[in-house]
Amino acid sequence: MISRLLAPKTTVHAHCDLPCGVYDPAQARIEAQSVKACMEKYAASSDHDFQARAVAIKEERSTLVKEHLWVLWTDYFKAPHFEKYPQLNTLFNEATKLAGAGGTKGSNDVAVADQLLTKIDEIAEIFWETKKA
Amino acid sequence: MISRLLAPKTTVHAHCDLPCGVYDPAQARIEAQSVKACMEKYAASSDHDFQARAVAIKEERSTLVKEHLWVLWTDYFKAPHFEKYPQLNTLFNEATKLAGAGGTKGSNDVAVADQLLTKIDEIAEIFWETKKA
Amino acid sequence: MISRLLAPKTTVHAHCDLPCGVYDPAQARIEAQSVKACMEKYAASSDHDFQARAVAIKEERSTLVKEHLWVLWTDYFKAPHFEKYPQLNTLFNEATKLAGAGGTKGSNDVAVADQLLTKIDEIAEIFWETKKA
Amino acid sequence: MISRLLAPKTTVHAHCDLPCGVYDPAQARIEAQSVKACMEKYAASSDHDFQARAVAIKEERSTLVKEHLWVLWTDYFKAPHFEKYPQLNTLFNEATKLAGAGGTKGSNDVAVADQLLTKIDEIAEIFWETKKA
Amino acid sequence: MISRLLAPKTTVHAHCDLPCGVYDPAQARIEAQSVKACMEKYAASSDHDFQARAVAIKEERSTLVKEHLWVLWTDYFKAPHFEKYPQLNTLFNEATKLAGAGGTKGSNDVAVADQLLTKIDEIAEIFWETKKA
Amino acid sequence: MISRLLAPKTTVHAHCDLPCGVYDPAQARIEAQSVKACMEKYAASSDHDFQARAVAIKEERSTLVKEHLWVLWTDYFKAPHFEKYPQLNTLFNEATKLAGAGGTKGSNDVAVADQLLTKIDEIAEIFWETKKA
Repeated sequence: MISRLLAPKTTVHAHCDLPCGVYDPAQARIEAQSVKACMEKYAASSDHDFQARAVAIKEERSTLVKEHLWVLWTDYFKAPHFEKYPQLNTLFNEATKLAGAGGTKGSNDVAVADQLLTKIDEIAEIFWETKKA
Repeated sequence: MISRLLAPKTTVHAHCDLPCGVYDPAQARIEAQSVKACMEKYAASSDHDFQARAVAIKEERSTLVKEHLWVLWTDYFKAPHFEKYPQLNTLFNEATKLAGAGGTKGSNDVAVADQLLTKIDEIAEIFWETKKA
Repeated sequence: MISRLLAPKTTVHAHCDLPCGVYDPAQARIEAQSVKACMEKYAASSDHDFQARAVAIKEERSTLVKEHLWVLWTDYFKAPHFEKYPQLNTLFNEATKLAGAGGTKGSNDVAVADQLLTKIDEIAEIFWETKKA
Repeated sequence: MISRLLAPKTTVHAHCDLPCGVYDPAQARIEAQSVKACMEKYAASSDHDFQARAVAIKEERSTLVKEHLWVLWTDYFKAPHFEKYPQLNTLFNEATKLAGAGGTKGSNDVAVADQLLTKIDEIAEIFWETKKA
Repeated sequence: MISRLLAPKTTVHAHCDLPCGVYDPAQARIEAQSVKACMEKYAASSDHDFQARAVAIKEERSTLVKEHLWVLWTDYFKAPHFEKYPQLNTLFNEATKLAGAGGTKGSNDVAVADQLLTKIDEIAEIFWETKKA
Repeated sequence: MISRLLAPKTTVHAHCDLPCGVYDPAQARIEAQSVKACMEKYAASSDHDFQARAVAIKEERSTLVKEHLWVLWTDYFKAPHFEKYPQLNTLFNEATKLAGAGGTKGSNDVAVADQLLTKIDEIAEIFWETKKA
């Protein structure tokens, strides 16, 4: 959790297209944590209806992960960021794919959620570096 | 920001009605920060269309504040919490009112957003105390 | 307009955060009736896909129950109401919990839906008393 | 339960596409009442931001009127109903148009909201006749 | 696909209640194609969770089909159209029913999706005729 | 409209995260057309409330443009596409920015909508090339 340690303690940031200028990768991470928790609860249950709910809610929360990441990619990051961090585009594309059909939507494997969380942390680390710059 | 200092550094939490067990008052705070930023941008602008967008987006973000707070109130807090913190119900009722028509929806006054942020911080402080318990 | 003539004159109320001043507990009750009906249809079916749809739609309708109740609690009821009806906070908290994970979302038991309906009726009774006051 | 005792026994109905079989024109009427109230509050105000909010919320509530009516038209009413009430299609088409750009969305005239309410009442009357049949 | 052949090649049309005047039956057709694809993937799979996701996503996409069709019926088509094409009301009512509980929501049978697509094509053909008129 | 001429005549494509495999840049283009139409109607009107509605609906439709483009970028395009078309990432980032605060949301200038439409057409041309491959 290097990115969190580097971050200012009091910031909690988000977005809107005014733009309000408030962004925070924590929003994506929170939903990804929820995705992972749904997988864990799915695995721990043998109640079919509960498992169906876990899959459905995981789908919904994965969508929110994608939304929050897309907003950061389009609305927060600017041309100079992409020059300085040439891996940014691929990072975002892979992270959002990891929250989609080939990732946490299509899988109940906690390892996939962990990969997603790791990608979000990589994005967060760059994000907080740019905020300090 | 006492509540943030007291909080574990790495946690970023949310919710769903599985329940996934992931909650974090930061979600409400992020949106409230956005509400405040919309008010500031509204005040700094003289472009009528921009101001209309600021008001509309502030409305939307205020609704999200209410949503996140309602979820905490209903889904995270249990009977023993309400016994230990008898002010909780009123705190949540006032906080959500502060994000409504008589609060940040009906006003462009940054002081109202600050009152909302203060209420959220009071809630957050109790929240993190209960997480440590 | 026979149906309307039979109905109490003050009915059909809702809300918005203008606020428009139009509220009616019927909105929550309608969705709760739908929740109960989904449970009954779930029980009467042996088609797995149909049952999955019933669970998913029940989830969605339970969320709507919560939404309508939260709006009443925050937007309609004011400080004097909470003084006069000290049970209001607990009533709303329990009712919304009954439409959540520990209630109609997590259960297919019609008795749980009935408990939810009873709570909504208790809220409605207080609501209509305050409207007459 | 005084309020419920006064109400017709068969009321509080809604829908979902399970289908749950719960329908009630009151849902559309409630939103239309809200539309009308927004117009009245718009007219009574001279605060530009408040008026903008009234227009925006009226837009949203008008959309909900359309939604509820469309659901009744498609999901509740069946071929025999359309045979018995040949005016039904036109009634629904006109009612939904009255909640659109040429109706309550494009106008702040309370008379337009009243026309919409009248159409909804005509639909409700037929609806309740079919429920008794 | 007669309707597509008759249509201007470059038009891609939609709607909003401004109204923007941009409509295109392609929006409903795209979602109906997705509904059909979900059914095909459902049939080709034996993974229970995947099938549950297919059913849930099919439900969502079917709802979008209904939405797009309702908008065309209410917002694009006017009284003269209904006079010239007396089958229009029934066509829309049947098409939206085909995307509901008795249609693609309640069934995994690709033949039902094909019936829906055929209805949409019939609507599209009339739509493009009226655009040329 | 080279991309449309190159495209198979009968395809109308969309998406979902099953994935259903149905994609079509037309969805983004339709909403962008609507955005442009809102600007034109805004310019042609002197009714303040109508203009406010135009701005609000333009905001909503711009969001839909972003959504449809993000889905294509994450869900349709794969690693080999990004290798073959190295401009893809920038193209999508610029297109979605053009539908945001610095683009069609923040501006009423039809030229901005035209730039957005041009970007979407560039994306569509690549999309259809990859479909033929």
